[in-house]
Amino acid sequence: MSQTDFDIIVIGGGPGGYVAALRAAQLKLSVAVVEANHLGGICLNWGCIPTKALLRASEINHLLHDLGTYGFKADGVSFDFKAIVARSRAVSKQLASGVQHLLKKAKVPVFKGFGKLDGVAAGGKRKVLVQPESGAPQSLTAKHVILATGARARALPGLEADGKLVWSYREALVPDELPKRLLVIGSGAIGTEFASFYRNMGSEVTLVEVAPRILPVEDEEISALARKEFEKQGMRVLTSAKVGALKKGKNDVTVPVEVGGKTETITVDRVISAVGIVGNVENIGLEGTKIKVDRTHVVTDDLCRTGEPGVYAIGDLAGAPWLAHKASHEAVMCVEAIAGKTVHPIDVTKIPGCTYCRPQVASVGYTEARAKEAGYKVRVGKFPLMANGKALAMGEPEGMVKTVFDAQTGELLGAHMIGAEVTEMIQGFVIARTAELTEAELMETIFPHPTISESMHEAVLAAYGGALHF
Amino acid sequence: MSQTDFDIIVIGGGPGGYVAALRAAQLKLSVAVVEANHLGGICLNWGCIPTKALLRASEINHLLHDLGTYGFKADGVSFDFKAIVARSRAVSKQLASGVQHLLKKAKVPVFKGFGKLDGVAAGGKRKVLVQPESGAPQSLTAKHVILATGARARALPGLEADGKLVWSYREALVPDELPKRLLVIGSGAIGTEFASFYRNMGSEVTLVEVAPRILPVEDEEISALARKEFEKQGMRVLTSAKVGALKKGKNDVTVPVEVGGKTETITVDRVISAVGIVGNVENIGLEGTKIKVDRTHVVTDDLCRTGEPGVYAIGDLAGAPWLAHKASHEAVMCVEAIAGKTVHPIDVTKIPGCTYCRPQVASVGYTEARAKEAGYKVRVGKFPLMANGKALAMGEPEGMVKTVFDAQTGELLGAHMIGAEVTEMIQGFVIARTAELTEAELMETIFPHPTISESMHEAVLAAYGGALHF
Repeated sequence: MSQTDFDIIVIGGGPGGYVAALRAAQLKLSVAVVEANHLGGICLNWGCIPTKALLRASEINHLLHDLGTYGFKADGVSFDFKAIVARSRAVSKQLASGVQHLLKKAKVPVFKGFGKLDGVAAGGKRKVLVQPESGAPQSLTAKHVILATGARARALPGLEADGKLVWSYREALVPDELPKRLLVIGSGAIGTEFASFYRNMGSEVTLVEVAPRILPVEDEEISALARKEFEKQGMRVLTSAKVGALKKGKNDVTVPVEVGGKTETITVDRVISAVGIVGNVENIGLEGTKIKVDRTHVVTDDLCRTGEPGVYAIGDLAGAPWLAHKASHEAVMCVEAIAGKTVHPIDVTKIPGCTYCRPQVASVGYTEARAKEAGYKVRVGKFPLMANGKALAMGEPEGMVKTVFDAQTGELLGAHMIGAEVTEMIQGFVIARTAELTEAELMETIFPHPTISESMHEAVLAAYGGALHF
Repeated sequence: MSQTDFDIIVIGGGPGGYVAALRAAQLKLSVAVVEANHLGGICLNWGCIPTKALLRASEINHLLHDLGTYGFKADGVSFDFKAIVARSRAVSKQLASGVQHLLKKAKVPVFKGFGKLDGVAAGGKRKVLVQPESGAPQSLTAKHVILATGARARALPGLEADGKLVWSYREALVPDELPKRLLVIGSGAIGTEFASFYRNMGSEVTLVEVAPRILPVEDEEISALARKEFEKQGMRVLTSAKVGALKKGKNDVTVPVEVGGKTETITVDRVISAVGIVGNVENIGLEGTKIKVDRTHVVTDDLCRTGEPGVYAIGDLAGAPWLAHKASHEAVMCVEAIAGKTVHPIDVTKIPGCTYCRPQVASVGYTEARAKEAGYKVRVGKFPLMANGKALAMGEPEGMVKTVFDAQTGELLGAHMIGAEVTEMIQGFVIARTAELTEAELMETIFPHPTISESMHEAVLAAYGGALHF
């Protein structure tokens, strides 16, 4: 008979859940994962990973229409949209089966079914009920239960995805064909990435945002530059825009959009609704426990503990920022705390955010405005990629790097980047911010030439009046 | 009459020279540059920058032959080799004129001519003689003279570039046509980049290295993986190989290559000689001074001072590593020291090195072997890009990240990477090494998902038995 009692049970097999299990196994804790759908969660199956594969295709498509710039020529450039989508699915599948393999190698049992808290057993252990798709439920016990059930797309009244004309990220990832006209509602990371993908594949794209600017969590100058670049690419961008009731036709949707008191009617083939995320707090046995739910996320302390002893929540379920790397970092911290190790609570101003549109956007820490709101006196440095040799050599001079320092202590408060490869570059600033480095160490650092990353150095120098190449 | 007396005169307008001048101007020192050829030096005109533009083309060519992988199709893919070279030249020209503009904006006069030390004037100032290509020499004076005359390709007896059949980097950058068969002698960064460029453009390439492995300054595992990838791409790689006397035909060259006691004769259309660098120490007035020359570089102390008071040497002229970012960092340090600022001498183990072949190579600090030679007890971590989601999504799973830590203190001693975008990623490890961070801060850092940079985190975790995805 297989094991049913564990040190830790993790409900949910996404990046939070499976990483918690892997770390627990490394620390010689007995651990199991309960997962109803697919290991890897939204991130691997319907989020981070398949979108990156699609975006790679849209970058290639862009390049294929710009070959002359580089001295190349090709006739009859075409793509097989189904093959592009199929490649994206194959990458997801490969990684999800990789997770399966990692758990197997770590000897972590995976219970397939819907997991929920089910009270306390005699002796004080937590009970977890696993309900498989068919068949009888199974009861497990553990000293600790980590809830990692993730989140799903928010469905605004009137904007609910119908899977046909109105898509959530899920349908947007597996389209049958390229929509000629597309409206994307919401310009957070998800909406912006889809807008960028479809635009670069050739769709007419309108991106609508209720806030006064796109990518509203980013620094204002980054938002402005992103908008400028998107518009140069032929995307239509509407901000401070309110979407009215959709009117669905047979194969199109008519959408009233109000901007500045004027309403315009836009007819498109498909709508992507990307208006936010809600935590999966339903049917996981929270009723009758001391676990608090605030709007749609489980309330935790800074060590991921809920109000119920022995029950933890991590990742999207525990609230913003909804990022896989926040989930997996919380997973490691939560498990290490359970194992009695000394851990450091997460500081959200040390969590980077990336948007893989073209040009890419990446940031960490305080925007200039938020730093000022928080009472800091700031020093700000900026450097345009137009003045960077590698960016010019690559033919990608669009973008900038912006740094925000505490004028009093020199601490790097935030860094904001838009341009080629910035998602791979931001980690340097994250390391600096995590180690609480100041301008002195960053100035002293020798950035390799010729790289776009030299712009990071220049943006630091610029904050102190010493930029060399601008 | 224009100014002829300065606080600082910089001889040489490459990345060391012009950065010294820009920094001096920022610090309100009066400064002039003397340059015989082109501002920007080898780096901008015949090195870092134009090669990157060429390598961009070879990456595109590779992609165009792999379109099916991504769901794309194109007929009649072709390139105009002259246009590719012309684009590379245009990027160089744009950046070199950018340097001119920066110096003009900073009000730094540029004296066009060959500069040399010319003794000491009454009052103790240094004299510099500027000999223009034609016309009378001009005499300038300054309190301080910074020598930044750079370096040039080493010409081994029998392997001298003739500009037609045997190329140095200079001719290799401006070929009239793609050689069908190419032999590259020397697998340092320069040789390897040209080998990669020409192979990816379609030449049959043989890369010959006298040392037992290619990229001999890199970590052994990186060299081995680079070789494996190059061979997969159809490049022939010969190590521990000695090149005999070239026999030049009318439009080809026959080269005897001895490997393991056996000599093979290879006939190619062109040879690239990339067997190292020698400093430009000639005719700059070193005779009769206390300035010492060791082999072909000017001997300096750790603040770039030569044996002669008031005379400094920076960049390639001052010896290895021959890297533009080492030159510009020395430039800033040297000028700041002259201005009376507190400066930190350069630690070569904090200078990154990048090779822009496919896949890219980047590293900083001690290799595993050198760390052990230096007496360190090490902890080593490795992570293959094959296990990285973003690398898979991009279709670039070749590569790895390797970290070397001091087992006693946890200090990051070195980091070694091969794979897509690693030249943009290495700065994170350089920041860490510059700030003398340990594994603790790097583990605590939240690397964004999904990025190839997560492999940096995993390679740190791996050194401490905690890699999650492998």
